[in-house]
Amino acid sequence: MTRFMDVHHGMQGITADQLREGALAVEKEEGVHVEHAWADPESGTLYCLTEGPSAEAVQRAHERGGGSKPDEIHAVPLAM
Amino acid sequence: MTRFMDVHHGMQGITADQLREGALAVEKEEGVHVEHAWADPESGTLYCLTEGPSAEAVQRAHERGGGSKPDEIHAVPLAM
Repeated sequence: MTRFMDVHHGMQGITADQLREGALAVEKEEGVHVEHAWADPESGTLYCLTEGPSAEAVQRAHERGGGSKPDEIHAVPLAM
Repeated sequence: MTRFMDVHHGMQGITADQLREGALAVEKEEGVHVEHAWADPESGTLYCLTEGPSAEAVQRAHERGGGSKPDEIHAVPLAM
């Protein structure tokens, strides 16, 4: 399993409930685990930290979960 | 204190030691606490999760710490 950070734009006005529901929907799919998510309702930026088998699996998990699709996904093998 | 996510580009080849040293340098400045940082040495993308008094303080902490300057800083009041 690899850790990924994905970034979504255009999420202006997102609420805490929507962030949690979106993360839970992604969590069910493709063997992807959502570790954390953070959002800025003002700029509409959302960051999602996951573990999953591949970037493609993280992308598909977002599509199948019915939530917003990431604009970027990067493996983040280094962490502190 | 507010939580911020900042993003750095152009960090290709960054090592785990460099990530840790950069975070420690920022940590000393401007009342900013670095909670976590993640990096992708391949694409050169670095994400840094901090708490601090303002986005400007986070920016100055990176400048004074002598590390790479963020390309973006967003407050992330929502988290899960």
